[in-house]
Formats: sequence, structure tokens, C-alpha cells
Amino acid sequence: MRIVDLIEKKKKGLEHTKEEIQYFVNSIMDGTAADYQISAWLMAVYFQGMTLNETEYLTKAIIDSGERIDLSELGTHIADKHSTGGVGDKITIILIPLLAACNVPIAKLSGRGLGHTGGTVDKLESIPGFRTELTVNELIQKVKDIGLAIGSQTKNLTPADGKLYALRDVTATVDSMPLIASSVVSKKIASGADFVVLDVKYGSGAFIKTPEKAIELSELMVEIAKRQGKKFNAVISSMEQPLGRMIGNSLEIIESIEFLKGNMPDDLKELTFKIGILTLLHLEIAKTEDEAYKMLQEAINSGKALEYLKKLIKSQGGTPDVTENYSLFKQPLHRFEIKSEKDGYIKNIDAYKTAYACKLLGAGREKKEDNIDYSAGVELNKTYAQKVNTNDTLATLYADSNEKIAQAIQILKSAIEIENTEPKKRTLVYKII
Amino acid sequence: MRIVDLIEKKKKGLEHTKEEIQYFVNSIMDGTAADYQISAWLMAVYFQGMTLNETEYLTKAIIDSGERIDLSELGTHIADKHSTGGVGDKITIILIPLLAACNVPIAKLSGRGLGHTGGTVDKLESIPGFRTELTVNELIQKVKDIGLAIGSQTKNLTPADGKLYALRDVTATVDSMPLIASSVVSKKIASGADFVVLDVKYGSGAFIKTPEKAIELSELMVEIAKRQGKKFNAVISSMEQPLGRMIGNSLEIIESIEFLKGNMPDDLKELTFKIGILTLLHLEIAKTEDEAYKMLQEAINSGKALEYLKKLIKSQGGTPDVTENYSLFKQPLHRFEIKSEKDGYIKNIDAYKTAYACKLLGAGREKKEDNIDYSAGVELNKTYAQKVNTNDTLATLYADSNEKIAQAIQILKSAIEIENTEPKKRTLVYKII
Repeated sequence: MRIVDLIEKKKKGLEHTKEEIQYFVNSIMDGTAADYQISAWLMAVYFQGMTLNETEYLTKAIIDSGERIDLSELGTHIADKHSTGGVGDKITIILIPLLAACNVPIAKLSGRGLGHTGGTVDKLESIPGFRTELTVNELIQKVKDIGLAIGSQTKNLTPADGKLYALRDVTATVDSMPLIASSVVSKKIASGADFVVLDVKYGSGAFIKTPEKAIELSELMVEIAKRQGKKFNAVISSMEQPLGRMIGNSLEIIESIEFLKGNMPDDLKELTFKIGILTLLHLEIAKTEDEAYKMLQEAINSGKALEYLKKLIKSQGGTPDVTENYSLFKQPLHRFEIKSEKDGYIKNIDAYKTAYACKLLGAGREKKEDNIDYSAGVELNKTYAQKVNTNDTLATLYADSNEKIAQAIQILKSAIEIENTEPKKRTLVYKII
Repeated sequence: MRIVDLIEKKKKGLEHTKEEIQYFVNSIMDGTAADYQISAWLMAVYFQGMTLNETEYLTKAIIDSGERIDLSELGTHIADKHSTGGVGDKITIILIPLLAACNVPIAKLSGRGLGHTGGTVDKLESIPGFRTELTVNELIQKVKDIGLAIGSQTKNLTPADGKLYALRDVTATVDSMPLIASSVVSKKIASGADFVVLDVKYGSGAFIKTPEKAIELSELMVEIAKRQGKKFNAVISSMEQPLGRMIGNSLEIIESIEFLKGNMPDDLKELTFKIGILTLLHLEIAKTEDEAYKMLQEAINSGKALEYLKKLIKSQGGTPDVTENYSLFKQPLHRFEIKSEKDGYIKNIDAYKTAYACKLLGAGREKKEDNIDYSAGVELNKTYAQKVNTNDTLATLYADSNEKIAQAIQILKSAIEIENTEPKKRTLVYKII
């Protein structure tokens, strides 16, 4: 078998056999396939797609390229969640303590932020002392001890996907359904999950732009997971606007703490609870949706969920006092309030532009090696459908220099649309698969 | 400008600007574009194609990536020819002395063989002592002295194409019309040609399989050359069967010598004369096709063309006596005759299979660094439409080992089809553009 013949076959739109896919992934790992051949194949896949069978084989081969975490000592049904990436997406940070409070043990592996979306690991590391570099044994031991743990993804997991993703990123081949599906599903399965709720987002702040594409990708991921013997659900929701009111690393931790104290923005609550309910139902901890909803609400009301967040922070070396004293976070040196120039209602806050403003403020990374400023970001003082009067504060920018704030003001201003009539109430969740 | 954005643009089927193409080619040369990015772009070009404007800009940028040979001291209209590659294609070796005998000075640059097609340079080097590594000055001086010279292509010419071609070869992106056209036209123009006859072949032994594709490519090359201010013609001909009777390095030199002595196989004469006629007409050395034909025929009959071949051989360090004494060539150690198992007429001799047999015999290269056996090859004792009787010799295989012959016999046998009825007379040339 020659790599060039495999590229030719895919170029012609023919279906790879299981053996060919396995050979290709092996060749990625042992260097037989040169980077320039892998990227030509990726571009051919972009144009010709992959069949369900090919995507299944690719997913399996990627799983087999590295370590596979065994979490079976934590239970017979290991639950997990995965977000395709959004702006202001702090759901993992809220949901893991919330589920732990409902007796769902979760050993979660999360990633760092890149491009316009943030990463759970970066956000957690904005808590002074918080450590995410855990070994698999540490991760499991912490879940056994206190019921939850969040670690950063190791390189031993799906290394073939690591290689593929690095090439896709620089060769404009990220947006291919079978490549996305195999990447996500392989990583979740290699992480030891049996049941996963996929949080699939579409819109300006997501890499998928339409609900139709989000459905296509979700159906593909659910099917591919099923073929590996795993149950995945997908919650498809809009990412036209940021999730919640805070975007930035420590800002999102603060919003997560507030959520667990009962201050829950509607959009954030809708999506977090939906994912939580699906998990509780699948694990048969709750029998009905209504029962599951009440359990989650009670975990908030009783303060139990917040207690679990504190346990998590303490267990991973962080300062649990941050939950009561936000001044323990690194403080931004400068702030600027954008004021409304008219009366009306918030019609839209563009998620991508908001994220772009946050990156300019120092909250995100352009390249992997960039440093981020944990205190930088945007607070939305008004959100969708809220009434605003002239001179009301619409948003607050935080950064360590006024130059960065100056760069971000215009883009953030242009993100916020105000209209005269009150917009209709919206729901975030579009479909469950 | 970022390379990944250029790939994305081409992936979406958008048209590159002149500046973008120039930037991309510059980035190939200075290493800003990584190999894996170039190959992703090449695959995107395969799927999305290029507009005429893009192909024009690419051709120009490739020419400008290296040296451009100035042959103006040899005349105001420098003629050249180029073959897209075929089996048994020794036309350059015949045509250059033939045109020299008609007062057309030609400084020809040729390539080596790779894959299933042979190269003029390899064939010439089968003449003991023949040297093709000439500097541009040597090439020009030889043409001034004796009227003709054939050198091997230098790396200084169109280096961007060298880089692109090396990647296309290993990423299954050879068969893209704009990439082929820009590669051929840039090389010919950088070699100093003003007028070029393109010998474009289609069929089993060519990389283009149909006359329609050959026409498409020819029209593209002629138009791109026109946009660079150059006149190109294309002769489109069938490469379903090998050209002439001999396939192999010294075997093809012997057939070329025989041709210049007047022993001209019909197919070889038809194509060689057609290219010669177009050249003589363009240079206004002949006024009519008939006059040009007679000039070429007279150059053969008078022995003048053969004299020019001898001059060429002598001028480049070879032994001119080979033209009279074929035993001066390296002799094959082993030979084997394939006999006919029935009576009938030759219906077809598959060019690709014949070339494949030759490669097994040692006459060709799989990889650039492979050695070739100059004496190896195939002699077709019967060709298209000839009557054969049982036990007549159909073909003779030459090699330096019986193992190689044993490997090649079956494939060569399967290449030769015999039928009961006499096939119609065929002409090789399909169209002139």
C-alpha cells in the first residue's frame, strides 16, 4: 500500500477500506505518511467527504493510536459532556459540581482556548493555585475522594488526532464533518466515557454557522459513537450571542460561582439544565425530566453544588475562598464602560465580535504559545431583550492597558444592536438528538 | 497575507489575485509556505480549478522564480518542441537533426525518464561518451558552431515548478489542467523559446486518457503562452500504442538512426513530419505544407539529417561511429522472443503495458535515484495491422538477466491483441491546435 495511492483513491471519491484507514493512521504515527501527503488527503476528504463506514474506521483508528483511559472503577456508566466551542461558554465549570451534587461522579478532561473560543482549563487556572495537570491516576483518585475532578487533556490521548488537527489548522481543512466527528468522538471515547452529551453550537460565535449543519454534524457524531458501542446525545443550540453575561477567564469563573449561588442568567440556565437533565435521565438517577430539573434546582438552592465547586478548587490546589472573595482573583488594571447612545432594547450582541474584542483585551490566544491575561474580558451589563436608556452602561471592558481597551471598544460597540421595539423572548436550544 | 487564508480562498472556489499568486510562489521559494500547505493548496486547485487569469499569473510567477535563458543571439524566432510524454517517443532525437538540416537552429533542453515514460536525456546518454550536462553558454556555443545541441534541464530554470512538481508527484495532484499547463508553458518560455510545438498525447500510454482532455489541455497551454506573448501550436495524437517499433534507451537511438537513414515507421513519420512542418511554416522557411514536407523528406534522402545527428553526437562527446556500428552500444546479455500462438492481424499493442514490461526489464526508473539499463527494452517485430502467422516472432525482450525477462513476458504478451480480420488503417494525429 502506498500513501499516494490512498490520496488518489480519496481524490476520486472512492471508499477506503478498514485496512486502508488503519494503514493511513498507522503511517501518520510512524512517519511513513509525510505531512504534505496527510494534508493533501485531508483536502481531498474535505471535497469528497467520507462514508459512515470510513468515519467509523477513522474514529476507531484514532482511538487506538494512543492510550485509552479506563474509568470503570468509578461506575458502570461514565458520563461526560463536550462543547464544540462557544463564546462565554462556562457550562463545564458549572455542570460538573452540579452533577456531582446529584451523585454523578465525573472525571473530566478539558482543553485550552485557541482562536476566538476560550478553554475550560485556562478559566480554571485563573483561580490562584488551581492545577489541571493531573495524571490519570490522580484524576481517578480525586473523583473517588470527593466526587469530581477536571484535568487537562494529555498528549497520550488520540495522538493521531493531535497530528491531524495541527495540520488541519494550518491547511484550511478544519471544517469537514467526518474529520470533526472522528476527532470529537475518538477523544471522548479514549477519555473513558460511555455516555456523552454533545453541546453543539451554531451561529456567529461557533465554527458551524447554521442549525442544519449542526444537525448534520450531531447526527454523524451520535451514529459514529453508537458504532463504537457508546450512547451520545446532542443538544443543538444557538451561539449567535455570548452565553451568559461574562466573557474572559476569571470573569467566567465568577459568573459560574454566581450561578451556583442561584444567580442564573436565563440562557445559561436553559442550556446547563438541559445537559444536566439528559445526563440524570440516562444514568437513571431521575425518572422524568421534571424530577431531574427539580434535583438540579435543589442542588443549587441547598448550596450543595457550590460546596462541590469549593471541594474541586481545594482538591486541585486552588484557593476555595475565591468563591466568597472575588478580589482574590488577579484584578484588571483598567476598565471602560460603553454607554448607550439611545433608548431601546438589546436586539443582538454578536458573539464573534465580542470574542474578538476579548482577544484584543488579552483574554485569548492567537497562537498556542501566547500568554493570556486572566483578568481581561468583557462584562455585558445589558443582555438580549433588556430595556436600555441613553447613557446606561451596555458593557464593561477589562484589560491591563488602556491601549488594549482602545483597540477593543469599536468592535464591541459594533457588536451591540439596539432597536426600538422589544424583541421576542428566545430559547437557546434548537433541537435534541 | 497568510498562506492558510489563500488555501481557504481556493478551497471555496474563489479567484486569486495576481498579487496573491505572486505571494504564494514567493512563499514556496523562501519557505514561508510549508510543504503541507502547498500540497493542501494543490489539492484544492485540483478540485476547484484555476481561471485563465490565475493560470497566467501562476505561469509568469513560475518563470520569474528562476533563470530565464536568452537565446536571441541564435535568431529572432527560437523554435522548440515539447512532448507530454509517451512510450517509444524518440521524436526529439530525430527531429532536432532533421530541422538542423533544414537550417533551423535548436538549443534543446530535455528531461530524464520517470515512471512509465522514458526521457530524451537518458536515451542520448546510452550513446557511449554522450554528455548532456551543458552550461547555457556551452549550449549556445554548440548551436552557433554546428547548428544544434541537446542539454539536460538545469535546476536554475523554473525552480518553483520543480518544487511544485515534486509535491504533486507524491500527493496525487499531477492531473490538474492548470497545474500541467503552467508547468509546461513556464519551462518552455524560461528555456528561451518563442515558438513551440506541443506534442500532446492521449491514451493508455499517456497521462491524459481521452482526446477531449488533450484538446482542453492544449487549448489552455496555447492560450497561456499567447498571454506571455509566445506562439504555441499543439499536435494532439494517440498514445494507445507505442510510437515506432523500439522501446528502451539504446534501442530507441538505433531506431532514430534508422529513421534518419530512411527506414521510417508510418506512425513515427506521421508525427515527426507534422511537428517539423508546423515549425518550418512558422519560421517561414517553407511557404506551404507540401514544400515543408519535401524539405524534410529531402533532408532524410540526402543523408544530411543523419550527418547532423553525427555532428550532435561528436559535439557532445559521444562516439559518432554508433550510427554505423550498433555493436558499440552496451549489448543486452539476454533476449527472448515472444511467438504468436495464432494467425491473424495485430489489432492493438497496449502502450502502458509495453512500458511496464520495459520497466521490469530495467529500461526505466521507479524513483529518481534508480539506475537504468541502457540496453534493456522491447523490440516490436510486428506492429499495428500487420499480418502474423503462428510462430512468428511478435516481440523481442532484452535485459541483463533472465529473471527480469521472466517477469516481463506475461505483461507484454497480454499487451498484444491479435484478431482475425485486418484492422483499418489508422492515423495518429487527431487534431492540430
